[in-house]
Parts: sequence; structure tokens; C-alpha cells
Amino acid sequence: MNETVTFGEVLMRLSPEGNKKISQSNRLEFYFGGTEMNVGASLAYFGNEVKHVTCVSDDIVGEAAISTMKRYGLDTGSVVKCNAPLGLYFLEVGAVMRSSTIAYNRAHSAFSGITPGMVDWKEVLAGSDWFHWTGITPAISEGAWRTLEEGLKQARKNGMNVTADPTYRKDLWNYGKDARKILAGLLEHSTIFIGGVNEINEILGTDHSGDKDGFVKAAKELLNRVPSLTKVFDKVRNGGNASCQKISARAWNGKEYLETEALEITHVVDRIGTGDAYAAGLLYGLQHFDDEKAITFANAACALKHTIAGDVNLVSADEVMQVAEGHISGRIKR
Amino acid sequence: MNETVTFGEVLMRLSPEGNKKISQSNRLEFYFGGTEMNVGASLAYFGNEVKHVTCVSDDIVGEAAISTMKRYGLDTGSVVKCNAPLGLYFLEVGAVMRSSTIAYNRAHSAFSGITPGMVDWKEVLAGSDWFHWTGITPAISEGAWRTLEEGLKQARKNGMNVTADPTYRKDLWNYGKDARKILAGLLEHSTIFIGGVNEINEILGTDHSGDKDGFVKAAKELLNRVPSLTKVFDKVRNGGNASCQKISARAWNGKEYLETEALEITHVVDRIGTGDAYAAGLLYGLQHFDDEKAITFANAACALKHTIAGDVNLVSADEVMQVAEGHISGRIKR
Amino acid sequence: MNETVTFGEVLMRLSPEGNKKISQSNRLEFYFGGTEMNVGASLAYFGNEVKHVTCVSDDIVGEAAISTMKRYGLDTGSVVKCNAPLGLYFLEVGAVMRSSTIAYNRAHSAFSGITPGMVDWKEVLAGSDWFHWTGITPAISEGAWRTLEEGLKQARKNGMNVTADPTYRKDLWNYGKDARKILAGLLEHSTIFIGGVNEINEILGTDHSGDKDGFVKAAKELLNRVPSLTKVFDKVRNGGNASCQKISARAWNGKEYLETEALEITHVVDRIGTGDAYAAGLLYGLQHFDDEKAITFANAACALKHTIAGDVNLVSADEVMQVAEGHISGRIKR
Amino acid sequence: MNETVTFGEVLMRLSPEGNKKISQSNRLEFYFGGTEMNVGASLAYFGNEVKHVTCVSDDIVGEAAISTMKRYGLDTGSVVKCNAPLGLYFLEVGAVMRSSTIAYNRAHSAFSGITPGMVDWKEVLAGSDWFHWTGITPAISEGAWRTLEEGLKQARKNGMNVTADPTYRKDLWNYGKDARKILAGLLEHSTIFIGGVNEINEILGTDHSGDKDGFVKAAKELLNRVPSLTKVFDKVRNGGNASCQKISARAWNGKEYLETEALEITHVVDRIGTGDAYAAGLLYGLQHFDDEKAITFANAACALKHTIAGDVNLVSADEVMQVAEGHISGRIKR
Amino acid sequence: MNETVTFGEVLMRLSPEGNKKISQSNRLEFYFGGTEMNVGASLAYFGNEVKHVTCVSDDIVGEAAISTMKRYGLDTGSVVKCNAPLGLYFLEVGAVMRSSTIAYNRAHSAFSGITPGMVDWKEVLAGSDWFHWTGITPAISEGAWRTLEEGLKQARKNGMNVTADPTYRKDLWNYGKDARKILAGLLEHSTIFIGGVNEINEILGTDHSGDKDGFVKAAKELLNRVPSLTKVFDKVRNGGNASCQKISARAWNGKEYLETEALEITHVVDRIGTGDAYAAGLLYGLQHFDDEKAITFANAACALKHTIAGDVNLVSADEVMQVAEGHISGRIKR
Amino acid sequence: MNETVTFGEVLMRLSPEGNKKISQSNRLEFYFGGTEMNVGASLAYFGNEVKHVTCVSDDIVGEAAISTMKRYGLDTGSVVKCNAPLGLYFLEVGAVMRSSTIAYNRAHSAFSGITPGMVDWKEVLAGSDWFHWTGITPAISEGAWRTLEEGLKQARKNGMNVTADPTYRKDLWNYGKDARKILAGLLEHSTIFIGGVNEINEILGTDHSGDKDGFVKAAKELLNRVPSLTKVFDKVRNGGNASCQKISARAWNGKEYLETEALEITHVVDRIGTGDAYAAGLLYGLQHFDDEKAITFANAACALKHTIAGDVNLVSADEVMQVAEGHISGRIKR
Repeated sequence: MNETVTFGEVLMRLSPEGNKKISQSNRLEFYFGGTEMNVGASLAYFGNEVKHVTCVSDDIVGEAAISTMKRYGLDTGSVVKCNAPLGLYFLEVGAVMRSSTIAYNRAHSAFSGITPGMVDWKEVLAGSDWFHWTGITPAISEGAWRTLEEGLKQARKNGMNVTADPTYRKDLWNYGKDARKILAGLLEHSTIFIGGVNEINEILGTDHSGDKDGFVKAAKELLNRVPSLTKVFDKVRNGGNASCQKISARAWNGKEYLETEALEITHVVDRIGTGDAYAAGLLYGLQHFDDEKAITFANAACALKHTIAGDVNLVSADEVMQVAEGHISGRIKR
Repeated sequence: MNETVTFGEVLMRLSPEGNKKISQSNRLEFYFGGTEMNVGASLAYFGNEVKHVTCVSDDIVGEAAISTMKRYGLDTGSVVKCNAPLGLYFLEVGAVMRSSTIAYNRAHSAFSGITPGMVDWKEVLAGSDWFHWTGITPAISEGAWRTLEEGLKQARKNGMNVTADPTYRKDLWNYGKDARKILAGLLEHSTIFIGGVNEINEILGTDHSGDKDGFVKAAKELLNRVPSLTKVFDKVRNGGNASCQKISARAWNGKEYLETEALEITHVVDRIGTGDAYAAGLLYGLQHFDDEKAITFANAACALKHTIAGDVNLVSADEVMQVAEGHISGRIKR
Repeated sequence: MNETVTFGEVLMRLSPEGNKKISQSNRLEFYFGGTEMNVGASLAYFGNEVKHVTCVSDDIVGEAAISTMKRYGLDTGSVVKCNAPLGLYFLEVGAVMRSSTIAYNRAHSAFSGITPGMVDWKEVLAGSDWFHWTGITPAISEGAWRTLEEGLKQARKNGMNVTADPTYRKDLWNYGKDARKILAGLLEHSTIFIGGVNEINEILGTDHSGDKDGFVKAAKELLNRVPSLTKVFDKVRNGGNASCQKISARAWNGKEYLETEALEITHVVDRIGTGDAYAAGLLYGLQHFDDEKAITFANAACALKHTIAGDVNLVSADEVMQVAEGHISGRIKR
Repeated sequence: MNETVTFGEVLMRLSPEGNKKISQSNRLEFYFGGTEMNVGASLAYFGNEVKHVTCVSDDIVGEAAISTMKRYGLDTGSVVKCNAPLGLYFLEVGAVMRSSTIAYNRAHSAFSGITPGMVDWKEVLAGSDWFHWTGITPAISEGAWRTLEEGLKQARKNGMNVTADPTYRKDLWNYGKDARKILAGLLEHSTIFIGGVNEINEILGTDHSGDKDGFVKAAKELLNRVPSLTKVFDKVRNGGNASCQKISARAWNGKEYLETEALEITHVVDRIGTGDAYAAGLLYGLQHFDDEKAITFANAACALKHTIAGDVNLVSADEVMQVAEGHISGRIKR
Repeated sequence: MNETVTFGEVLMRLSPEGNKKISQSNRLEFYFGGTEMNVGASLAYFGNEVKHVTCVSDDIVGEAAISTMKRYGLDTGSVVKCNAPLGLYFLEVGAVMRSSTIAYNRAHSAFSGITPGMVDWKEVLAGSDWFHWTGITPAISEGAWRTLEEGLKQARKNGMNVTADPTYRKDLWNYGKDARKILAGLLEHSTIFIGGVNEINEILGTDHSGDKDGFVKAAKELLNRVPSLTKVFDKVRNGGNASCQKISARAWNGKEYLETEALEITHVVDRIGTGDAYAAGLLYGLQHFDDEKAITFANAACALKHTIAGDVNLVSADEVMQVAEGHISGRIKR
Repeated sequence: MNETVTFGEVLMRLSPEGNKKISQSNRLEFYFGGTEMNVGASLAYFGNEVKHVTCVSDDIVGEAAISTMKRYGLDTGSVVKCNAPLGLYFLEVGAVMRSSTIAYNRAHSAFSGITPGMVDWKEVLAGSDWFHWTGITPAISEGAWRTLEEGLKQARKNGMNVTADPTYRKDLWNYGKDARKILAGLLEHSTIFIGGVNEINEILGTDHSGDKDGFVKAAKELLNRVPSLTKVFDKVRNGGNASCQKISARAWNGKEYLETEALEITHVVDRIGTGDAYAAGLLYGLQHFDDEKAITFANAACALKHTIAGDVNLVSADEVMQVAEGHISGRIKR
């Protein structure tokens, strides 16, 4: 059994069709996503039991968010509601050298009002064996940080695996605390680190280079300084633009350096959530395979997400495994 | 020349297609509206020069809002931008006995951050002869109230006509001041009152009945107690449901009671903004006709808005005049 | 066997979705129609063999028009192409008291360039027994008029029935000839008149009233003055607006006055082409039933068209018969 | 606690937009529905715990059906899959006097292949107190009938309430058994009858009239002849057409005749599933109110469904209660 | 004159927009296709007279299928209808390394019920000079096989050319006969073989390699063993994925080996029907050019189909010729 | 301050969605564009004050065109209306080696009826410093040519910069004058030439080659023969197809040859208006930078337009500058 718990904000994404700009359109496509929920939903599609903990608006938008999570197969029994709007963002989708542009509306979201008293972590985590968090959550509000921290403590008390994806998104940190210190503190309740040299440098205040050697040195230093962490998993993007990408994965598992071959995504369908797809692939991989196969699976999952519209990697473990095993011709399945 | 100035929040309205619910859809139609902007845009369609003053987000959504106002022919030269999201709301459109449902996301909007220092009213109002405000603006934030108040003072100093539509929307008043007192204060800088017995009772603390007699008494008392006001214009809905309506208009112009015949809207296309269409029709009517013809024109404008999608009454003065003159068979114009 | 030939312009109709205005949209729905083609296509849906003669643009639009006619089951073997654009019009769909608005782009259309030499009427009409024309065609251009005239002469030579729907659309007559004289001339090659008092007054220069008596007198005078004509069929609209209608049919068949009960269309889907649906219903009725049943069938066909999107009455003879027999509850057919 | 179990086929409904015909379109809107699932999903929206038991295709369509049921909040843990396509139907939506037309593709559906061995009723029904079935299920296949029969036996063994809606759809009965006998047999495992005089006459072979007296006599005879049944609930449609309806409800509860006032649906959004909405309203009513209030609630639920797109009545118990209490003006809820 | 007859099932294809999955959408785009109809329709676009023989459902879906065939310019006079649903399939469109996924619903389709008595081949084939069949038809049902066989016998009796594309789709063969034997038998009534080494090995039970030598040997053996066959035409895909492809053609015409240069499709619009476009290009090529030019034309037709949405290659012979002659820059044609 | 005036026809572009053909669709997306308006609107997005002078239809289409120009921020105060339809064209969008196909409907457009008396150039040009024209305008009608000529004379009188993009579109020249002579005449009122060797050869009747040397020789000869011209700016397309492009820019500024690096557009979103985007980028570049930076900016602007839907390059000067400085990875901007 692999019951996973994810915790974090669910956002509504609103985009004009195709590559249009808002001012060219009179309607928007929408998806519900959120980095941790994306990881959870992808794992649910792989077959795991997953519970997502979040706080949504007590209105028709929050209801739609919950119904979407249900549709993904997530257990929404621990979702709380409060009287503030659901966070959302507008996305104009770029192409080639034109960047996608995002306008956020999340500063006073329902989730930002979450506080430790609103989640009964003991009950929530009972029977689960894996907890996943990212650096977005503690950035949102002090309440979100404290709630996460309590969850992590309970998770470690229960002996659960804890994967940390401590992305540092500077613009989000607005409640006057030291992001690095908070992230470093949360890592001490984590067992696996998902991130690269940038993230390590950011948190440790180091200056490692981005090449293989730099990565290994950074990973070693991280494992030294945060003893609860045992492994470091990174993903690498090689060039490309908004419409095509080339990706690979690498890891330092405490003993050896591992890396995958690169996969080329010649025609990107949707780039949002590809990092989350990597994380979900990695969790699934670590639950079922050795580290080498795990990163190959994670890289394949990440590649496939580039071909899926929306925030969540709506593919089965089988489909990922096919790509991981080199079937990349995309022939029709009848 | 009729140069009008309107001041108020611009909101994005987001709705699933037709009568769908958000959870049944993957896209939303959107419109930009806002009660005062709707009035201004309708007047621009009638041929007036109109300047709309507001504060929008400094992002792709705010840009789209501005480009929409330009499209309506509004002068956007006095629009300010600030670093907060544009207010918005989600609307699930009801039918027959099922009410439309709205979920607001405007509490921390760009407009709510407006303060008197951000609008140079002397410059903005130069050369204009009409100012229109509603009770929504002072409800949004203390800054919005104060900014409006300064504008009204300047407008009266300039000898402009000031129409007040002091709708009292209880849920919006959240900054701890006494709504009635504030609305009453703003009325003292106004010359024409748009509203009915409910609004008068609300502001004066009276208890007049809703019938003709009650209306006339309420109007007289209002004109007595707020000497700057000279006329009271009301609109009346007679039964109906979300899909059909019957409307008429009535007035106390200080001398006599006036009322129009009822117009029946057998099939409602969009009910949002019908009150604003009435207000715009009234302003145009007062600028061009006597009071009796003015309310007939206003009622016809209001009726036509029920057949127009979106927040703004995209019809010409000619089209309104046709209906005001009794051409309601809807024959095709080739 | 009932092989019918229709002759006239095919136009593209372009409309924003629902009741939107062009400036509110970024896309348009389109249909191909044209009053005579609509009659022909409806007859083809009833099961007749129908050939439509027209001239379309020699480009991707003309090709699409032809492929639509084929889809309707029309014989397009006599369609000619020429190097001018297909005529088209933009339609903003009204509702209730708001009229639909049309903007034409047909003055220099492919069809307007048609000349008698382009249609081999002897070949086209061989084997057919019914010809239908309307007053739109001779209004378009002198070439169109002359081509029609030649067709009518050949049709009468072949002893075919000729139905005339000589609608007089003033704005279309721009080539400097006397419309009434031309229409009167064409009626002399026709056997059945579809039209009411207005059309008769227009053509004969008379002044009959629109009530029953006036209609009978007008019809009698018409049959007197144009001996080739034997019957007059009219349809009547009773009040209503752009969203609801009440219709009935009446006739003077040379011997007696006939009229149907009224059918109420409580919710109009599309009003374009309802007159053409009446004409098609009438032709079918005259081919299969006595005059009384024929107008009942025609009125039912006309009613049903109000519930069909697009220009053509896409219903079977069976569906019309059901309504003609009084089954108007609209229960689901499983 | 009200845990309900529903059992029956889930179908995909495919319709062109608005009132278009398939040949006018290049895309279809789709919904998943099915009479028993519709009842279950509506109850889930009211707040009940509901488990739906069915058999879906083991492919991307079956997966989408399951994800929709999850979205509705249904427990899908007892759904089985098999290697046959999901049943589906095409619907062209009528208007006014034009009937909607349906083309079924369900004869060899996944559900038709269900057999008693595929559902462990003991486990499925444990902890539930209400079972709902309709006459569609036993019509589909002998396996479906037998599976239902086993479920009903187990339900009665557990002392559950069993509501029967034994609609007789003649065209569906194709496996060579006597429909009346089978339906009568299933009624013996039921406690509440949902249906009118037509259904009773059909099953008992009687000839009661449709008026109040006839209904009461029919109901009495039914309760006499099928002793497990205690109450009879009927809904009545009064005239109207595909675009407007007038509905009321009536009952014989073994002691007295009850009836509601009529509700008028002036503009129908979607007529499919209105009977299921009535049944769901009735179940909820019987679980919470006396019989009189129960049918008022059921009638209000049925009325609201006419304003909801799709097969399922996506409204809360609160919304229904509002209408049941007479709030039918459809004012916007902000 | 080139009158061609094609025979085979017409299917409805249903897909979510773009690369979405069914569960992400609420509507599906649809196309009508079917391998033999696709060939016929493409030939009709090239200017041939083409009659397609098939059996469709006697309902609104079958009607839409027929109206689509008419739109393509196919003669549908020999289409029969029966009381079973039209076959259909759902397609989720893949991208890059993600395969498209298909769910079929065709096992009990209208076409599967066809039997020899339903087609009067003598009448159908009168005046035609070319018959095209594929291995899909005999796989569907014994009736389909027998009907095809009769058609082929009559065709050969009339001295018509018969092209065979005996694709072997294992999953379709479910009526208990030996596919290879049946296919081999049908080849004996054919004159031209469209297929590659896989198909030949499958039918002959041989084991030739896929390279040039293997192809030539396989083709020679085939022509030896099936004397009615005179030429073998193959198409080759070189790598690529679901979003980009590289294709070429090769042939053994009994005398020499021919091959074309490769064409690169850098951005695939729609991969369905590309093989049928090749076949149609080949037939047209063989009717107008020598073998070398024929395969160049066929390869160009196949390439162009990758840029066309839907099942049918909606391009003119001129457009294909342009590409065949090396104009592949895709400049705008004004 | 950079106030620019552009003059030319505004057209409506109508396209089926994606790569569909008109006959596959029932709706069309539309944009308003026109080569000179595109240049003006792009400059307005860069922040310039821009006035566009044109003549539109006096109907709902012309109104929509004006409202679109307003939305782009163009000053429409000098737009005239006349009683003829707006020009338009249908576009089927190609892909890879399949060309886009255009069908024009502009021969009798509103703009073609423009005459010198309709534009008061003295007033229009007052306060502006830049005029831009193209070879499309004088091709449309003699009136359009004469009106342009008058504008150019006034512009030169005012000492304005005049950029000429004298594209020679043979098919458009239908009023019986010598295109070369007219274009050469207009160049004499221009200061900067935008075009390549083809355009120069066309106008001068020379035969220079397309390589670097040929370009420099042609440019020198042009500057010699048309003394008012001081610089020549060209853009170069290197291979590619309808779905991918590689572009660079080059110039002869009277003193030295300049060229940019190539930018690769791996996935074209919309190719229409890319030349206009280049021209707008160039104007902005010449107004703010030296010639070298100007062509780099122009090339970047042109590249970005390939990623924008519609006719106008809806990007800011900042976005162009980013690409000009080499940021072409298209990373998401949060």
C-alpha cells in the first residue's frame, strides 16, 4: 500500500485559447492545479491512495475545485473551506521565444488563511506512509508555514517518508520572515530532497556550480548539513524554448551519481506542472524501483506531462513505463 | 456637448456557457463591467463623450480591462494602475426560478487600494458637465469613499450635474464605517437621485410603503431632507423570474408624479447591468428630453439591456428611441 | 415523381454566437442560405429530387457553398462558378423587442454577374415539373433578371408549375429598372402566387386592406389581371416579437377562402428562412394534398423552421405532418 | 445517516450545441447520465452518502464515466468494468413543438453484460438503508434483471427501504421475457412505488383513468395486490411543449390523497433527467419530512432540474427548499 | 473517365479538442471516416466519379454520415440502412512520445450486419472501372467478408482494376475464421497490392526482412503465388513520433524497384487516414501517370494528409502535384 | 514624442479553427487587420501615439472594425465611413508543405471608394512626425492612390519621415494604370525604403541578384535613382515551411551593409502580419536606436509576431528588446 498525503494550495488557472492574449478573446479555459495537488493527482492516476489537504473558498469556485479533485481520485475528506476566494492566476501561453505570462491573484486566498488549528494532522496522517511538500506553501503565509510545519513533525513522528521540493519563489514571500531559514528548518523534517544546485545554493547560502561535479558537491554538502535528508534528485533542462524542450534527470543517492538519457519533447503541449510530474514519477519510482530506474521513470513522467493539457499528468504508470523503456515513437494504440 | 465622468471599479465577470455550472465546464466566458463603467459605456454608445476613472491591476488583466474600455469608446486617460489584482466575480447563470449565483473576489482588488491622492479631480473634471456615482464605490474601501467624496466636491464646485444611484449592498461594507451616514453625506453633493423606496428608507431610516403613494411621500421627504437633490427616478419590476421580466419606470420630479407603461421582456438574455442601462438612459434622457420622455427612454434602454449579452448596453440612442416609441415587434433590420 | 428546380443566389450568413454583437466576439457561426435554395433544400429533405441553379465564387468559399448544397441533397450539377466573391451578410441576432441587424455584402457577388448565356435552361429543366422563383433574384442585377426570365419562359413551354414568391425588397433594386413592371412581367410566366396583400398592392399599385375581405379582393384582382395565376397563398404573423411568434396561413384558390388555425412559437430558435419553409411546405402540400391540407402543412412547416438553426428547414415530411395533425407537445422521440 | 445505493446503466449522452442537428455541426457536447445514477448523484448533491453500482467499459470512455461519478461525489468502489463499449445515445434537442430525437447505441453495452456473479451485494449493501431501482435495468438484459433481483432480495433481507420507479420502456425489452411479469416480481421486493396510472395499468393489466379518482383507485389496487408496497408517488405534466412545462405531484400514501400546486417552467433548459430529479427529491423528502412536504420538495426538485444542463440535478437541498417554499422569482444571489 | 467504387464501413470518430483527454472536456469533435470511404472521398476531391457502398444506421447518426458523404461528393445511391447503430470510436490524440488512444464501439455496428443479399453488385459496378478494398472489411463480420467477395468476383468479371490494401488488424477478427486464408482468397480477385513486407509475411506466412532486398523478394514471391496481382506498392515511415514524421514510398512493379525521396512532416496536424491518402494518391497516379510518378504523387498525397484535420485528404490533385514537384515551402496562396 | 500616421485598408480576416477547411466547420474566427494598420497598432503597443486613417463600411462590421482599432489604442478620429462593405478575406491556414489559401472579397470595398476629398491631410498630419505607407494602398483603386499621394506630399511638406514598403501585389492592380510608375512616383515622397531585391528590381526594372552583393548594388542604385530615399531595409527568410521559419534582417544605410543573426521560429502560430511587425519594429528602432540595433529590434519583433495569433504584433517594446538581446528560451514570466 502506498498512501500519500499532499498539502498545499489549489489554484484556478485561466487562459485564453491557444496562444491568444486575454484582450483577443472573450473566454478562458480553466484548470485547477497547484504544485502539491498536481503531485498527488498524478500519484492517484498511477494507482496510489492519495489524500490532498488544502483550504478552498466556501463558494461555487471552491466547490468546483473539490469536484475536480474528486474527479482525479483524490481523497478530499480533509479539505477545509473558508470565507475567502480561491487563489487563481491568468496565463497567456507563450510560444517559441515568447514567454508565457502569468498574473497572480492569490495574496488573500482561502489557503493563505489556513492556520494550524484547522488541520487535525494526527487524524489526517493516520495510515499514510508518505508526505510531500514544496517551498510554495511556506511562502504563502505564516499560517500556511506553521500548518505545514506541524504536519511535517507529525509525519516524522509517524516515521513517514517526507519528500521536499523546496523551490524558492522570491515574489511569494511577503510576510516578513527569512525564507531560507524557514526552508532549512522544514528540511530538517524531510528525508528526500527534490531540487538542484540553485535550490541548494539558495538555502545553504553556498555557491556550487551547475555541472555534474558541482551538483555532486552541493548534494553532499546538503546531506551533511541536513542529516535527515538521504538523497538528492534533480531534473535538467537542456536548451529549448517554450515550444520544444530536452530533459534529463540526475541524482546523488548518498552513494553514487546517477543520470538518465535525455528525452526530447519536440512539440510542447503544456509546460505547467512538468516539475510536479517529475516529483510524482520520482515518488512512485522510489516506492517501486531502485534509484536508477526511479529517475528514469521520473524523467519519462516529466516528458509525458509536456504532452498533456492542464496542470496534472493524466497518465497511467503503464504509459510512463512504456516511455521509460524507450517506446517513444507515439504510434496509435487501438 | 455632453461630457460625462463616471468613477468606479471595473470587474471581470466569469461565467460558464449558457446555464452550466462551473463544475460542468472547462471554460468561462468573460466580460468587463462595473456599475458606473456600464453607465459610462452605454452613454458613449449613445454618442456622449465619457471619461471613466478607475484603478486597475498592473498586469495582463488590467491591460485587457483598459483595452475593453477603449473598445467601448471610453476615455481611459485618467485610469490609474496599481499592484493588486483586478476585482472579479464568478457567475453561474440561473433560469426561471433558479437564481444566478455569484462568487466575488474583490475584497483586495486594485480599486480598493485607491486613495484621494491618486486622482487629480480638477484636471479630470475640467470641461465635463455630468458626474455619475453609485453606492457601490463608497462600500469598497475608505479610500474609495474618500476619493469619490473629493470628486463630488469638485464636481459641485464646477456646477456639474451629479446623479446618485446610492444602492446599498450590505455585504460590501466591511471597513467599519456607518454606510447610511456616508451615503447620506455623499447625497449632499448630488443633484438627482436614482433609486426607489427601499433605498430612501435605507438612507433616511424611514418606513415608506412601496406603492405609488409611498413612493411619492418618500421622494418628497428625501428632497426635503437633502436640499441639493431635485428629482427622484425609480424603476419597477413586476413579478417575472430569471428568464422573463416586466419593467416600468416612475419619477417624482419635484412637481409631479410620472410613470411609464410596462415593457415585457419575454425572454431574458442577460440581466446583469439592466439597472445601469436604466441610469444611462435616464442621463441621456435628462440631457435631451423632458422628464416624461426621459423615463420612457430610460425604461426602453433598460428593457433592451435584457436582450444584450454582457454588462454594457451596446445599443444606440436610435435603437432605444424606437422602442420608446412603441416599436417592439423586433422585426429584422436589413 | 416531383423534380423541382430552384434558381437564385446562395449567400453566406455570418453571426456571432447567441445574441452577441460582432464587437463582443472573435468568431462567427456561418450558414449557407438563400431564399430559393432554402426552398429547394427543404423539399429535398421532404424527399423530392431538387436541382438548384446558381452562380458561386470560384474559390474556397464557393466550394464550401457547393459542398453544403450537396450535403442537403441538392443536385449541384448546374451550378456555375465565376470570378467574383460569394455574396454574404452579417447578422446580429436580436431578441424580444431588439431587432436583428443585417449588413449585406452582395452588390458585386458572383451571382450578380450571371447572364442568360450561362445557364442552358433547356437542359436544366428537362424532366422537371416544378419551378420556384422569388422577387429577390430579379432585384439583384439585370443579368439575374434576364436569366430568370429565360428560365421561366422555358418552364412554361415545358408546361411546368411555376410558383412565384415576388417579395419586393426595395433596397436591393439598384440597376435602374422599374421593379413593379419587371415583377409583373415575371408573374405572367407563373401559375401560383405566394404572397399577401402587401405584395399584391405593391405590384398592382392597388390599395387593398389586410383583413380577410381585403385579402380575398386583392387575390381576385390579381388572378383577374394576371391570367396565368390560379391561386394565391399567404401567411400571417399575429403580433409576437423577435423571440416568440404566432403564425397562420390563408389562401384564395380561385374558388374559396381557406385558413388554418394559428400555431404559437413560444421560443424562437431562428427566424431566418421561415417564409422559405412555408413556401417549401406549400409546394410539397400542393404536390400531395388538397389546398386545405396543403396550407395546414405549409403552416406547420413554417412553425417548425422557427425551431431549427440556420437557413434551411431540416425536417422530414413526417415531422411536419405530425405537427399539422396537432401533435405539438414536443415529447422526446426515443 | 442516509446511505443510498443505486444500481443501473451509465450512458454517455452526445448532443450538437443548442438546437442544432448532428449534420449541422462538427462537435458534440456530452454528459454522463443514466436514470438511477442521476437519482444517486442528485442525492449526493443533497448531502447523502451514495454508492452507485454499475458496469462500465474498460477503456478511456469508461474511465471518463467513473471520473464523472467521482466528481458528483458518488462512491464508485463497487463499479465493475468489462470488455464492451459504454452504452451511449445521440440527442438532437428539440424546441417548442419539435420533439427531441434520440438514437441509442446500448444494445451490446458493457452494462448489458452484467451478471449476478459480478456484484457482491452483501458487501455492497452493508451499512446502507435505501435502495433505488427503475424499470430500465431489467429491460436491458437477463443478466441485468437477475443482478437487480439479487440486489433487491438482499436489500429487503437487510430491511432497507426500496423505491421502485418501474417505467416500462417497450423498445428496450428484447431478450424474450414477459416485461410485466418481471416488473411485478421486482415490485414484490419494493416498499415505495414511484409512478402513475399508466405504469400501474401496464403492470397490473388494469384500465384506470388518469384523473384524481382513477389515480387513487389505481394506487389502492396496487397496494392491495403488492403488499410490500406502502405508498404511491406520481408526477403530473400539464400541457406545455419542449420549451415550457407545468408540473405538479400527487400521492396516495395508503391513507390520504395528497397533491402539490403546479410549478411553471417558462423556459426549459434541459428536460432530460427531470423524472430522476423528482425521484431523488422524493427520497430525500421521505427521509426528512412528512409525505406532504416530501412531494412538495420532490416537485420543486423536478422543476429546478428543467433549468440545469445535463442529466443530473446539480442543486443543493437548500436551493430546492427555497423553491418548495415559494421563492420562484429567480433573483440573483450575491 | 475514372469511376471508382469503394466498399467498407463508415465510422464516426469522436475526439476531445486538441490533445485533451475525454475526462478533461465536455465536448467532442467528430468526423466521419473509414479506410475505404477515405480513399473514395479523396479520389472525389481529385475529380473522380466515386460511389461508396456501405451500410449505415437508420437514425440521425446514419443520416449525418450520409450527408457527410454527399458533401465529399460521393455517390451515396447504393448506401443501405439497417437497424443497428453506426460504428464509432473515441480518440484521445497523443503528442510526441504519447500515443493516441482509441476505444472502439463497432462490434455490433450497422455495417457488421451487411450480407450479400443487400448489395446488387451488378447494378452497383455497372460503368465503373476500379474497385478498392482493404483488410478491414473482411475482418468485421462473415457477412461483410462474403459481401466483399461477391463484389470482387463481379468486379473481375467486368474486367475492373482491383486494388487491395489487405491490412491485417488482429483485434478485429472475431467471427472464428482464418484471417490469412480469407485475405489470400480475396487477393486472388485483385490486381494491385498495396502493402509492405509485414502484410506479405502475414498473408503468405513468410519471413522476409523489411529492407529493400527483403521488400523486393517478398513482392516477387507474392506476385508468383497470387498470379492475378501485378504490382506491389509500399509506403515507409522513418522514425518520428506522434508530432513529426518522415515518409517515403517504394514499389515493385513486376519489372523494377522504384522509390521516392522522403518528405518530412515537421508538425503533424492529424495522422489518421494518412495510409488511405497514400492509397487514393496511388490510384489516381496509376490512372494518370507512370509508376514512378504515381508513387511520387502518392507519397505527396500522404504527406499532405498529415496537415489536414479529419479522416479524409481534402486536397485537390493540383495541390498534390505541387508538392510532388517539390514545392514544399508552404507559402501563402493569395 | 513619436506620433505616427498610417493610412490603408482595414480588412476582416475569417478563418476556420486550427488547420480546418471552411467546408469542415460551421464557424470562423475573425481578426481585423491590414498591412498599414498592423504597423500602426504594433507601434501603439510599443507606446507611440498612432493615428490610423482609413475608410470603413457604415454598418455593424465597420463599427466592429473601429472598436477593434480603439482597443489597439489607435486614434480613430480620422476614420471615415462610406456606404460599401468592409473588405474581407477568407483564410484556410496551411501547415508544413501545405500553403495557406486566401479568398479575397475586397474589390468593391468601402476603402476602394476613398477619394482625396475625404481626408483633410493638413489636419490629420498636424503634430505628427512619421508617415508609413505600403504598395497595397495604391493598388486598390485610383482614389486610394490619389489620396495616398496627397498625404505623402503634405507629409513631406511638413518634413515628416516617410517609410515606404512598396510591396508589389500584381493581382490587386486592376484599375488600368502602370503600377511601377505609380510606385516609383510615390517613392519620391518617401525617405526610407523597406523592401528587398525583388521589390527594387520590380520598380526599377533592374535585375539584381538576391545575395548580399546583389542587395547592396540594388540598394545603391535605388538610392541613386530616388534621391529622397536614404536607407534600404530588408528582411530575409531562409527555407522553412508553413510551420517553421528562420528569419534575419539586413540593410544598406547609405554607408554600410548591416545584417542580423538569424532567429529560428520552430513552431509558427500565425504567419500573417510578420512583415508588418518587422516594419513596426524598424520604425520604432529608427526612432530610438542606431541602424544596427534597429534591424536587430525589427528582426526580433518579426520573430515574435510568428508566435502571436491575429494580424497585429501584440507585444511590448520590452518583450521585443528581451528577444533582441538574446533571451529566446521562452521561460515562464511569473
